[in-house]
Amino acid sequence: MDKSTGRPTKKKVVAVVGGGLVGALNACFFAKRGFNVEVFESREDIRQAKVVKGRSINLALSHRGRQALKHVGLEEKIVSQGIPMHARMIHSPSGKQSPIPYGKKGQVIFAPSEAETYPNTKLNFEHKLHDWTAETGLMTFVRSDGSKEQIKADLIVGCDGAFSAIRKQFLRRSRFNYSQTYIPHGYMELTMPPINGQFAMKPNYLHIWPRNTFMMIALPNLDKTFTCTLFMPFEEFEKITTGDEVIEFFQKYFPDTIPLIGSDALRRDYFRLPAQAMVSVKCSPYHINDKCVLMGDAAHAVVPFYGQGMNAGFEDCIVFDEIMEQFNEDFSSVLPEYTRVRVPDDHAIADLAMYNYIEMRAHVNSKWFLFRKHVDNILHFIMPRTIIPLYTMVTFTRTRYHEAVERWHWQDKNDIFLIFHTWLQAWLFTALWGCLGKGHNDL
Amino acid sequence: MDKSTGRPTKKKVVAVVGGGLVGALNACFFAKRGFNVEVFESREDIRQAKVVKGRSINLALSHRGRQALKHVGLEEKIVSQGIPMHARMIHSPSGKQSPIPYGKKGQVIFAPSEAETYPNTKLNFEHKLHDWTAETGLMTFVRSDGSKEQIKADLIVGCDGAFSAIRKQFLRRSRFNYSQTYIPHGYMELTMPPINGQFAMKPNYLHIWPRNTFMMIALPNLDKTFTCTLFMPFEEFEKITTGDEVIEFFQKYFPDTIPLIGSDALRRDYFRLPAQAMVSVKCSPYHINDKCVLMGDAAHAVVPFYGQGMNAGFEDCIVFDEIMEQFNEDFSSVLPEYTRVRVPDDHAIADLAMYNYIEMRAHVNSKWFLFRKHVDNILHFIMPRTIIPLYTMVTFTRTRYHEAVERWHWQDKNDIFLIFHTWLQAWLFTALWGCLGKGHNDL
Repeated sequence: MDKSTGRPTKKKVVAVVGGGLVGALNACFFAKRGFNVEVFESREDIRQAKVVKGRSINLALSHRGRQALKHVGLEEKIVSQGIPMHARMIHSPSGKQSPIPYGKKGQVIFAPSEAETYPNTKLNFEHKLHDWTAETGLMTFVRSDGSKEQIKADLIVGCDGAFSAIRKQFLRRSRFNYSQTYIPHGYMELTMPPINGQFAMKPNYLHIWPRNTFMMIALPNLDKTFTCTLFMPFEEFEKITTGDEVIEFFQKYFPDTIPLIGSDALRRDYFRLPAQAMVSVKCSPYHINDKCVLMGDAAHAVVPFYGQGMNAGFEDCIVFDEIMEQFNEDFSSVLPEYTRVRVPDDHAIADLAMYNYIEMRAHVNSKWFLFRKHVDNILHFIMPRTIIPLYTMVTFTRTRYHEAVERWHWQDKNDIFLIFHTWLQAWLFTALWGCLGKGHNDL
Repeated sequence: MDKSTGRPTKKKVVAVVGGGLVGALNACFFAKRGFNVEVFESREDIRQAKVVKGRSINLALSHRGRQALKHVGLEEKIVSQGIPMHARMIHSPSGKQSPIPYGKKGQVIFAPSEAETYPNTKLNFEHKLHDWTAETGLMTFVRSDGSKEQIKADLIVGCDGAFSAIRKQFLRRSRFNYSQTYIPHGYMELTMPPINGQFAMKPNYLHIWPRNTFMMIALPNLDKTFTCTLFMPFEEFEKITTGDEVIEFFQKYFPDTIPLIGSDALRRDYFRLPAQAMVSVKCSPYHINDKCVLMGDAAHAVVPFYGQGMNAGFEDCIVFDEIMEQFNEDFSSVLPEYTRVRVPDDHAIADLAMYNYIEMRAHVNSKWFLFRKHVDNILHFIMPRTIIPLYTMVTFTRTRYHEAVERWHWQDKNDIFLIFHTWLQAWLFTALWGCLGKGHNDL
């Protein structure tokens, strides 16, 4: 315990690179353990900056994320800032709205606007990573005035997002497995302002406009605006080149949103930024020796079609913390174990999000898919403990992602088997009775 | 036609980066079309350099590669340098040798020692790529004396191998899909010298020592040596740390090779270089605008378990040339079309090589696998035109890789169906007769 500050101190320095959601939460976990935590963020202090719009997809906090926040005493604070969403609200092309509740009653998803930082740590904004060495932990940052700052860290935690600068060093080393996959869809964010100081639509819903190969969603913000996110193949985005074409497009597919967003705003905002790409990143290992570890999007960017990107990143922090406990904070044991334990789960959620993207595009109208969903629900109703829908396991439990997927495959296989078995019995029954009847007639 | 040189000239400059096998062959294709071809290679002239050993896996030239060589008139030259291999020779742990012939008679695989360069092109050795711009085609190279050279190319062809410098620029751009996967096995090359000026083993064979999780192969060279390549998991390589342990290991698994390689050479050469990693690289697209295209290992490094790495790279050149013909050498049409046509085939062969690696490890002793191989052979015997083993399609035809794989999946599925169908008929037949019999008895 350091008497001057009244906080527990340790000699070891943990440098967290990236001050986004996962970086900020990680800083809390390390600070809570008494490490000297230095957070480096290339952008200016986001708490002081004007809101940077149109660059981040709205995030939904569910069970895994909440568990991680709870661990550092932030759950209530963040959750109280969020807007609970009880259901999805489906908007038809004619403007008709139909609510579809989420899972069981009492389970809600929250959309936090911002993650606050735990006090026990030093934040260094406008510090851009210039160079670093995995062997020594020596890092050089460039400040906004061009001056350089060096720091020697005992542990470097790369939380610098899908286009991680830390990860680039991993790529230069041998035997680092890596994949980045862009999907053909892009996204664009549009703001729906408040009307007379109130939300323009019902706030406690995830609003969805499903339109086959593309869709729009809207999530409420604390300032009473909605962020509308339009997902569409890049080639469709590129077809729209004038303000009139924007209005024509919205008239056809999202007519109810035109008065709410405003047709002038629509004409203007559609061209403010080009549609953004979405990437799925998987890699392995997550660590170099006992010096560096990747977490959050830096380790596993996922496409946003399972609502688990932030939750997986937050769960990374809690999983790492659990392993720190298990191995007495010995980085040389903790880091390899973290890779061993976490890689299969992060790969599973990345695959699942991609699967959901493909499924959404291909099967949204398929009868087989609807039939399967129906069978799942019936089986869950008959055997609630044995058959748990995948979505429930992923969103409302901390079942390891890869185990959830394995269990789902098992259920899937056995559903088919069950159906086939029943069919075979029925068929045999008919065939045998038919043949017996025939036998009788022949005699 | 340029009268001073007597060769056809065009204003357009094609810069081929990388003077390996695919770069050299590509230079021939572009030179044959009359382009001003500049080849840049960071190493010294390999034709003058001492042989760089232990770094390259021995290569086998089969149908696709030969077709590409034939197109630029190099087939006979290269093939006459090669050593025909009629069969695989399997070495048991006791030293017993059993030949297994390749496919049908008359089909042989060649191992070229070196690809000569077509004369109609300028070779720039010891030129290391420093920087380049995809928009303008401006490239800067650093020579071995540190001086810089600039060149403006109309087309940049990246043939600079699995760790391509050209590809790095692709990675910085958005919407470039990329994956690199290292396998747990490494490889090490050892040389078996001639005995009394003659090959130490029968030369016209691919010698194989299969030993479950690891194996050794040996391929003959023109200088009467054999290059022995040991494939083994990295963790097994790392267990061997002394010369005595090397001998002990070879005594146990490859006793017949110790007198042929020489025990002193073995003790020494095992530690000369660490075991090398093997990577599978897939990416897409292969081009940037009308300026740059990737070919060979730069576009698709494959693990060496289907013997198609070099053949796929050579086939890239012929496919590109076919598209050049089709689109009148208009790069803005040729490059996107090349990506569209070639990506699925290169991905298919990369996957197939990886599949073969996994299959070799997992199924080498599995009864199901042997049973399937047996079924394939019977079906091929009954219906030679309908059922063509995958290996034959890949190695001895120019069937597009992805079509070969699709056809193989079709055959696989239909084999199962055929077997199931036959079984069902037999079962029904028995069941119905049984029930009829029962019917009789009951009366």
